[in-house]
Amino acid sequence: MNSIKSPFKGIVNDFKGRKASYKQDWIGGFCSGFRILAPTFYIFFASALPVIAFGEQLSRDTDGSLSTVETLASTAICGVIQSLFGGQPLLVLGVAEPTVIMYNYMYSFSKKRPELGAELFLAWTGWVCVWTSLLLILLAIFNACNIISRFTRIAGELFGMLISVLFIQEAIKGVVSEFSIPKNEDPNKEEFQFEWLYTNGSLAVIFCFGLLLTALKSRKARSWWYGTGWLRSFIADYGVPFMVLAWTAMSYNVPGKVPHAVPRRLICPFPWDKASLYHWTIITDMGKVPVAYIFAAFIPALMIAGLYFFDHSVAAQLAQQKEFNLQKPSAYHYDLLLLGIMTLICGLLGLPPSNGVLPQSPMHTKSLATLRRQVIRKKMVKSAKDCMKVNGSNSEIYGRMEAVFLEMEGNSPPNPEELANLKEAVMKADDGDSLKGKFDPEKHIDTHLPVRVNEQRVSNLLQSLLVGGSILAIAVIKMIPTSVLWGYFAYMAIDSLPGNQFFERILLLFISPSRLYKVLEGSHASFVESVPYKYIVGFTLFQVVYFLICFGVTWIPIAGILFPLPFFLLISIREHVLPRFFNPFHLQELDSSEWEECPGSPQVSLFSLHGVIENSPEAGGHEEGREEFCDAEILDEMTTSRGELKLRTSFR
Amino acid sequence: MNSIKSPFKGIVNDFKGRKASYKQDWIGGFCSGFRILAPTFYIFFASALPVIAFGEQLSRDTDGSLSTVETLASTAICGVIQSLFGGQPLLVLGVAEPTVIMYNYMYSFSKKRPELGAELFLAWTGWVCVWTSLLLILLAIFNACNIISRFTRIAGELFGMLISVLFIQEAIKGVVSEFSIPKNEDPNKEEFQFEWLYTNGSLAVIFCFGLLLTALKSRKARSWWYGTGWLRSFIADYGVPFMVLAWTAMSYNVPGKVPHAVPRRLICPFPWDKASLYHWTIITDMGKVPVAYIFAAFIPALMIAGLYFFDHSVAAQLAQQKEFNLQKPSAYHYDLLLLGIMTLICGLLGLPPSNGVLPQSPMHTKSLATLRRQVIRKKMVKSAKDCMKVNGSNSEIYGRMEAVFLEMEGNSPPNPEELANLKEAVMKADDGDSLKGKFDPEKHIDTHLPVRVNEQRVSNLLQSLLVGGSILAIAVIKMIPTSVLWGYFAYMAIDSLPGNQFFERILLLFISPSRLYKVLEGSHASFVESVPYKYIVGFTLFQVVYFLICFGVTWIPIAGILFPLPFFLLISIREHVLPRFFNPFHLQELDSSEWEECPGSPQVSLFSLHGVIENSPEAGGHEEGREEFCDAEILDEMTTSRGELKLRTSFR
Repeated sequence: MNSIKSPFKGIVNDFKGRKASYKQDWIGGFCSGFRILAPTFYIFFASALPVIAFGEQLSRDTDGSLSTVETLASTAICGVIQSLFGGQPLLVLGVAEPTVIMYNYMYSFSKKRPELGAELFLAWTGWVCVWTSLLLILLAIFNACNIISRFTRIAGELFGMLISVLFIQEAIKGVVSEFSIPKNEDPNKEEFQFEWLYTNGSLAVIFCFGLLLTALKSRKARSWWYGTGWLRSFIADYGVPFMVLAWTAMSYNVPGKVPHAVPRRLICPFPWDKASLYHWTIITDMGKVPVAYIFAAFIPALMIAGLYFFDHSVAAQLAQQKEFNLQKPSAYHYDLLLLGIMTLICGLLGLPPSNGVLPQSPMHTKSLATLRRQVIRKKMVKSAKDCMKVNGSNSEIYGRMEAVFLEMEGNSPPNPEELANLKEAVMKADDGDSLKGKFDPEKHIDTHLPVRVNEQRVSNLLQSLLVGGSILAIAVIKMIPTSVLWGYFAYMAIDSLPGNQFFERILLLFISPSRLYKVLEGSHASFVESVPYKYIVGFTLFQVVYFLICFGVTWIPIAGILFPLPFFLLISIREHVLPRFFNPFHLQELDSSEWEECPGSPQVSLFSLHGVIENSPEAGGHEEGREEFCDAEILDEMTTSRGELKLRTSFR
Repeated sequence: MNSIKSPFKGIVNDFKGRKASYKQDWIGGFCSGFRILAPTFYIFFASALPVIAFGEQLSRDTDGSLSTVETLASTAICGVIQSLFGGQPLLVLGVAEPTVIMYNYMYSFSKKRPELGAELFLAWTGWVCVWTSLLLILLAIFNACNIISRFTRIAGELFGMLISVLFIQEAIKGVVSEFSIPKNEDPNKEEFQFEWLYTNGSLAVIFCFGLLLTALKSRKARSWWYGTGWLRSFIADYGVPFMVLAWTAMSYNVPGKVPHAVPRRLICPFPWDKASLYHWTIITDMGKVPVAYIFAAFIPALMIAGLYFFDHSVAAQLAQQKEFNLQKPSAYHYDLLLLGIMTLICGLLGLPPSNGVLPQSPMHTKSLATLRRQVIRKKMVKSAKDCMKVNGSNSEIYGRMEAVFLEMEGNSPPNPEELANLKEAVMKADDGDSLKGKFDPEKHIDTHLPVRVNEQRVSNLLQSLLVGGSILAIAVIKMIPTSVLWGYFAYMAIDSLPGNQFFERILLLFISPSRLYKVLEGSHASFVESVPYKYIVGFTLFQVVYFLICFGVTWIPIAGILFPLPFFLLISIREHVLPRFFNPFHLQELDSSEWEECPGSPQVSLFSLHGVIENSPEAGGHEEGREEFCDAEILDEMTTSRGELKLRTSFR
């Protein structure tokens, strides 16, 4: 309640904190030079592709009222605002699936009302955005972000699961639609004759599954055995956009005798077409919306505000998880205020608003951490080696390394405990057994160097500008076959599931009891060991039933607009109802706010029972591989698909 | 040279040995009751599907002179003969890929000769079979099988690789051909209009990849985490035929407006059609073949005899590897004689001859070993538990168990050493620490029960009769889309590669040096540790070059008939040339006759470096799973795709 009594407190604090480091935010970015382009392009592709896909989905759902041009424009505008004026510049913004679903419901609603119709749809959504904006600003003023800790895993994962299922549904509907004539099309056209429809459908199956399978494979490239480290990283980072490109190129490989319109490609107007230009004048139509509907707009606004508050905060939270060791302060309250303002701007321009997106936001931080690490590491190793050449003592070597680290840190002095491990390791080297303790600065630094992120605004600004620039490349985007997008939807769905504990617990139910030990052999969530199996089953079944209810709500024609309601309800069910049925400790384990993981027990294979397990001298060959392995791959292994860092528990 | 001096010695020995156990071969089979049907059906499906696929391939290559009816008939006839009169009843016979390739070359040859033409093709192959038969009988008489130990890994794996590549080539050619009009067809038919040709091609891509991917997945079902053990075993054993069925059913799901002949299906005459009946009278045409061609037939006969000698012996060898602990004698010489006779019969009937096939032969033994193990195990556990109920001492318990084992073994007394481990384990149980040593008969038996195979003739006879019976079901076989068969060819190729050390060494070349330690983490062939990397590379490159030469030979139009020549040459290159370039020890490791494997070193992950590795009490949960894990899955893990058992070396 304290939060409500001191309005503006959070915003003012956030603003002061970020203001202090604002200049450094720009200097830090420009100092990285061209290297900053790597995370920029990485996030650009990761963020532009879904926005394009959502644009196509919106375009179908709203009969073309909104399309890829608008989703790209909204993402670019909000991204630029966030990078210039935002609190947390690591947060990546974009038009996300909840927005698309809400706009879909709002379109079906307004199309059926003669007072609104498709014509006043965007003007009406303008009013929805006004209300949403007001609500978000109020939430920011009254420090609502303080209750962020009450969003436990359960609601977020249920929501993530729902989005995945909706993606799969979208992919299936999309592929099926390729076999039939789209609405509002002339059925006498050559490409809509049965033989070509069927060909279009068959090709859609090939492209959709082709993209899905190759994208899923390429995502895991970093842990492949084959190819050089550089190639593997490149494929892992850019494989998915590359696959979209490859399958698009392949789609131009159909023989000339096939009608030009097979396979179908993205339909969207150019930004200079009348349909796109109309958006800039939406505000003039807003006065035409009947007053009753202006007030009715409050209901969807309430839902959207709730969703955005939830989604934006979680994305911001995951972008600054404590394991990233961010040095600059957070700005939840201020960013929520800014989100309210951006929602207003988008609404008045007739664009679907953007909010903080997952998994791109934590991906952004992760890519900057890798970049930063490489830079620091290189300098520290160099200074240590220089010192070793002149036969410096261990404490001299450490002194040099510390100096470099402090210099890199700039004005913000690091926590002394962070370097304690490194210091100890360097000091102890060469003590006693000189054979084993041979001092190797690279090794010590790899093991003990604390994580540092290059916190700056340049990469976010550049990627937003690139998204904006791709509006001009709409002619290229229009070459993508729709079936490739359906495959991409399926990819997004499947890729987001691992690491969702709700999903992993559902899988656990299907593992035959005699195989449960296999779960324990690998790394696994800690609840598997700390909570008895029957409670895991009970909790999961509750979630499944609740999920089916939520999924059912999305099918209700107009009341579907209320689909976020069950999620808000769930937060209170979690707090007041669930503790009556479950032991609080179990509940906390099953619904912890962090992804706690246990290391696997060593694999007990038939042979290792007989054979002697020991480190062979050859196995030492992986010391060489450590540098390569250390950077991005470890981070990959430690992160869920949603961008959450897994926490090693000392549970066992 | 001793072999040549004492003709008939091997055959007579073999005959005497097998005659002694002939009666038991039948009794043992019938005593198993209905349980014998499991391995029967398993081998039937594993053996019938490739024969059907080869039939379709032959039918295309020979313009329909031979087809699935003939390959099935040959497999059935030879299988029945082998099971009734054969030496080693575990050996499974069938028309194999080398035969199909040779018949393809022979057809291209005879079609181009005006004296022969397509009409006298089968009569000419009859003469080829006569020569082949003669050569095989001579090899058998002069005890050629004694040199079987000179066939090292190198020739066999090169051959296996060639077959795989030819399968892939067949699959690609097949899918591409689906986009064009087959030869000898009327291009005015509806299904050969461009739109339907293209639809047919697209569907072929879907069915081919669909079958390939699902078949590959289902093969690995036994190690899945999900589903009950019974379901997993079923899918692993019958998944591939089931997938052929499923995709065939799916192919009937195309809308009615698509022409009836899309997708294309197998073309083969019914056994009562004129084309099939003609075969029974081939012998009357053999007199029409010009004398010069009768002698020319000796050249392909020489190749085929060499291939058969090699293939048949290796298949027989792998069906009776020493790890299977077979109790009845081998019969290499006698079986080669029988192969000669069967080749003659097939030739005179105008059928392509059969020979011992891989991996079906070792699969057969393996499935009988599992069956036998289950029976023995059940009885021994029961007797041990009965004895424990009346508080029998450990030695009484062991006595009962031994009695059961001896009874099951029948007249052939077991090697006393085989039960020594079990005896020791049972005797030591409960000594000292009564907490740990709690006597559990199931556990001891699982660990120490020696492998036993139900050696009998019934399963082979029944499966051959089933293959014969499927000739009558040709109407059903004709429903399979050809594209599903192309997928099946690709499946056979890819499935046969793991475990081929030549292939695995090629992959090794592509692993970046910094990742080589990952190979050592898992189980791996012992040469990885015992031979320096540069020699592995050198040896593998030699094999690759040699392989390309062999593959090149198959492309030469008529001289292609000599394609087995490089393999025969390789045996002598291996003996006389390679030792000059490689250290004999390295050569032996890289080309050992057995698949020697090293256990992996424990996985060194980032976390296990910090975390404490210990067996958690929960990990003990896998004791329960042991029974399930022990039977087929261990055998699966210990066997290569070719059916070879991996040997654990005590190398480290």
